Amino acid sequence: MSHSKPVHAPQTHFGVVDNCLQVGGIPLHRLAQRVGGTPFFAYDRGLLTGRVAHLRASLPQAIQLHFSVKANPMPALVQHMAGLVDGFDVASASEMRVALDTPMPPASVSFAGPGKTDAELTQAIAAGVVLSLESPNEAVRAARIGDMLGLRPRVLLRINPDFEMKSSGMKMGGGARQFGVDAEEAPALLRKVGALGLDFHGLQIFSGSQSLSVSTIVDAQSSTFELARRLADDAPAPVVLLNIGGGFGIPYFPGEAALDLRPIADNLDAWLPRMRDALPQANVAIELGRYLVGEAGVYVTRVTDRKVSRGQVFLVTDGGMNHQLAASGNLGQVIRKNYPVAIGTRMEAPAGETESVNIVGPLCTPLDILADRMPLPQADVGDLVVVFQSGAYGPSASPSGFLSRPAAAEVLV
Amino acid sequence: MSHSKPVHAPQTHFGVVDNCLQVGGIPLHRLAQRVGGTPFFAYDRGLLTGRVAHLRASLPQAIQLHFSVKANPMPALVQHMAGLVDGFDVASASEMRVALDTPMPPASVSFAGPGKTDAELTQAIAAGVVLSLESPNEAVRAARIGDMLGLRPRVLLRINPDFEMKSSGMKMGGGARQFGVDAEEAPALLRKVGALGLDFHGLQIFSGSQSLSVSTIVDAQSSTFELARRLADDAPAPVVLLNIGGGFGIPYFPGEAALDLRPIADNLDAWLPRMRDALPQANVAIELGRYLVGEAGVYVTRVTDRKVSRGQVFLVTDGGMNHQLAASGNLGQVIRKNYPVAIGTRMEAPAGETESVNIVGPLCTPLDILADRMPLPQADVGDLVVVFQSGAYGPSASPSGFLSRPAAAEVLV
Repeated sequence: MSHSKPVHAPQTHFGVVDNCLQVGGIPLHRLAQRVGGTPFFAYDRGLLTGRVAHLRASLPQAIQLHFSVKANPMPALVQHMAGLVDGFDVASASEMRVALDTPMPPASVSFAGPGKTDAELTQAIAAGVVLSLESPNEAVRAARIGDMLGLRPRVLLRINPDFEMKSSGMKMGGGARQFGVDAEEAPALLRKVGALGLDFHGLQIFSGSQSLSVSTIVDAQSSTFELARRLADDAPAPVVLLNIGGGFGIPYFPGEAALDLRPIADNLDAWLPRMRDALPQANVAIELGRYLVGEAGVYVTRVTDRKVSRGQVFLVTDGGMNHQLAASGNLGQVIRKNYPVAIGTRMEAPAGETESVNIVGPLCTPLDILADRMPLPQADVGDLVVVFQSGAYGPSASPSGFLSRPAAAEVLV
Repeated sequence: MSHSKPVHAPQTHFGVVDNCLQVGGIPLHRLAQRVGGTPFFAYDRGLLTGRVAHLRASLPQAIQLHFSVKANPMPALVQHMAGLVDGFDVASASEMRVALDTPMPPASVSFAGPGKTDAELTQAIAAGVVLSLESPNEAVRAARIGDMLGLRPRVLLRINPDFEMKSSGMKMGGGARQFGVDAEEAPALLRKVGALGLDFHGLQIFSGSQSLSVSTIVDAQSSTFELARRLADDAPAPVVLLNIGGGFGIPYFPGEAALDLRPIADNLDAWLPRMRDALPQANVAIELGRYLVGEAGVYVTRVTDRKVSRGQVFLVTDGGMNHQLAASGNLGQVIRKNYPVAIGTRMEAPAGETESVNIVGPLCTPLDILADRMPLPQADVGDLVVVFQSGAYGPSASPSGFLSRPAAAEVLV
C-alpha cells in the first residue's frame, strides 16, 4: 500500500535567483532592506496585471470583471486595479473613499453590506455610487436620504438566492441569511424600489466564495442566471448590471489545485446569448477579490530564534498571526492546515535535504503558528520566511493590535 | 427523559435599572451618548477593584498578584490596575511602555515572549524591567546587550514544564513548545545564566490558560512547585520571584461555571510553607490576565436593521467580529458557541416572552456572528446589544481593519 501525502500546489509564479525568492524582480533580502525591516507584505504588480489578463483571455469578452476591494484595500494596489478591471465593489465608507480616489467612475463602484448606517448611505448617495440594497428597511432609508439630498440613489437589489453554493469555503446565500433579500421576497421589494422612486440598476446575486470545484461554480452561475431571468419580470426598470458574484477559489492547502477556467467559460458562453434575449441591456459582471489578488502577495517575516524543544525544531519569527491570521488557522478554518510556506532566502536545500520545522510567531500564545512540522530547508536566525497566497485578507483581516506589536508594512512592487 | 439545555452562567455583576443595563452606574443608552456613538467597549472600574479584592481575600496573603497586560492593554485600565496588583507582565515593547507610564516600579514588570528582537531586549534592559528569557540564544544576546549598555540585565528563566495543564483552554507548556526552555534543559541554562553574569531573579513556569477545572489548576500548581524546588538547586542565585503562571478561566459558554477558589487557596496554603523552606527568599506570584479583567467589560453595539430571512430573525449591528473576534468564534474555538449576549436596553422581555434571534455584525462575511439563534427579548433598530465577558482579548485581539470599518471606542467607567 502506498499512500502519497497531499502536497501544496507548486508556488512557481514568483522567480527564484541564486536560491532567493524574488518579488517584482527584486530579491527578497534586498526588498527587506528597501522596506526598512520585517515583517511586511509584498504584492507583485506584474502578477496582478497578468492575472486579470489571463481571466480576460479565458472568459467571454462580454463578461465584466469587478474587484472586491475588501480582499485587499491597500490604496496603491486599488489604484493599480483601477486600470485593469471594470468596476469596484466596496463594503464600507472607508473602502469607498479608497475606490473614489482612483480614476474609477463612481457609477462603476457598488457599495454592499448589511447594516449600512444612515451616515454611510448618505456618503454613498452623495458620491453617486451604486447602492446594493440589503433589506426593505434599507430601501426606505435610501429613498428618504435621497429626498433630503435632492439626489436619486442608484440601486442594485442584493438577492439571497434560493439555492446554495455547494462545497464553497463560505456560503453567502441559500437558507436564512443576513445578506440581501430572500429570492421569494424579491418581487415585492422590486416593485417597492420602483414606487420609492429609486434609480434601479440591477441585481447582485452572491451565493458563495472560495470554491475550487468547477461544477459547483458552473451550477451556481447557471442557477444565478435562471433566478435573474425570473426576477427581471418584476424589475421597475431594465437591468443594466447583473452582478453574478464570484466564488473562484485559490489553492491554500495540501491537495488543493488551481481552478480550471475552461468549463466555466464554456458555461458562460452558453448563457450569455440567453441573457441577451432576456435582459437585453444587462452587463454581466463577475465580482472577484481573493482570486484576483491572493496569489500575487507574500507575507515575509524574519527568523529571530531557532530552538529545539523535545526533539522538534522551532523557528521563531518577528511576525505571525497578528499580521496573517488566516495562515495561523484562526479565520474560518475548523481544522488547522499549513499555508504554503518557504524559506525565501533558501528556496532549495543543498542536495534536497529538508528538516521538519515548526514556524511560530512572536506572540505569547500557542495559536501563533505559521507552519506545523513542515519539511523545509534548514534555516537559521536572519533567514526570511515566506507565506505564499497572502495577497488577500492579510493585514486588514488580522488582529494587528494583538500584544501591541508593530503593524506590518505593505509594498506594491 | 428530560435533558435540560446548558445555559450561560448568570451575568449579574452589572446592575439593571428600568430594564436597562448599567456600567459603572451609568445606564447603557446614556453611556452611548457620552461615548458619542457605538460600537464601544466599556470596562467597569468598580468590578476590576472588586475582583482583585476578592482574590486577595480568597488566596493566601503571601501570594502576589501580577496582571498580564496583554489581556487588556488599554492605558487607563492599566493605570487603574497599577494601584491594585503587585506586578505587570508584558509581551511587547509597546505593552512595556504602557506599563512604565504607570506608578508600577520597573523591577515589578517582567517582559516575556519568544522571538524578542535585539531592539526589544535593549529597551527592556535600559528600562530595568525583568526579562523572561525564552532560549539560550536570548540569554547570550541579553548578556551582550547588557555589556554594551553597561547594565546588568535582570532575568527570569521561563520554563517549558515537563507536564501539561490538562483541560485548559490553551496549553502553554508540556511537550514541544516555543515557550521557554524545556525543564530538562533548564539546569544547563541556569548555570549559563550565572556564567554570563546576568542578574538572576527567578523562574516563570506557565503551563496553560483559561481552565475552569479546579483539579487541573491545583495539579498544575503542585507540579509547578515541585519543578521549581528541583530547579532551584542549579540556580546561580537565590530565587526571589517564582511566577507560577495563572490559568484561571472565566465562564464564556453555556454549561460553564465560575471557578471555586477555595480548593486552590487550600492547596497554596499547603505549599507555601514548603516553598519557604526550599526557596526562603522567593515571592510567589500568580499571573492573571483574563481572570482579572474579562468579566469587567462589555462590548456594546447598536441594531441598525432587523430582518427576517426564511423564518429566522436577524438583528444586524454596527459592530461585530472586527471588534470582538472571539465572540464570533474565530479565535481558538473549534466549534462556535455563543458568548453571553443580552439586549442591554431591554434586559427582560415583557411577560418573559423571548424570540430566537441571530445577531450579526455589518461585515460582508458569514463569519460575522455575535449570536446564533439565541432566545432574547424582542429588539428593534436602535436597541443596544451587549456581549458580556468582553474585558479581555477584545479590540486588541480583533481584526479592527477588516473591511476598513471604524475602530471601537474604549471607556473605563
